[in-house]
Amino acid sequence: MRYRASLLIYLKEGVLDIQGRTILRSLHDLGYGEVQDVRVGKYLRITLEAADESAARRQAEAMCSDLLVNDLIEEYSLVVEEEGK
Amino acid sequence: MRYRASLLIYLKEGVLDIQGRTILRSLHDLGYGEVQDVRVGKYLRITLEAADESAARRQAEAMCSDLLVNDLIEEYSLVVEEEGK
Repeated sequence: MRYRASLLIYLKEGVLDIQGRTILRSLHDLGYGEVQDVRVGKYLRITLEAADESAARRQAEAMCSDLLVNDLIEEYSLVVEEEGK
Repeated sequence: MRYRASLLIYLKEGVLDIQGRTILRSLHDLGYGEVQDVRVGKYLRITLEAADESAARRQAEAMCSDLLVNDLIEEYSLVVEEEGK
């Protein structure tokens, strides 16, 4: 079966977010003074074959710890669903 | 009132996703042969002051077209909610 893993990776609270700061400053320069904070993360949509949904989730979690997420400074949330649903 | 705009920016279907390809190859090299596709996007969490939720949404949409989204190659989805909810 084919599954889609949607992965949101973001910096832990307290870790300096340079990209977010830069975007915040640009927004202020453009006149969006009402913006108080910007945090930037990554979004990955992974399509994979797996026997069932819990196997797909285990595989995606293994990929996170092997390659995709630096757990010293990042956290992630993961949603796995059958493709086409 | 304080609102949080969660913005997901991704490449349109058909636009070559170099980052996604690179991650796909790395996953294959690590033995995750079951992965068929990877697409990469950006996630922005914007905290802003606004009179109400629809004003917050309008402001966030204006930021998207002014700075955050390149609508030639990117699409986005936006969720706006009151902070703390």
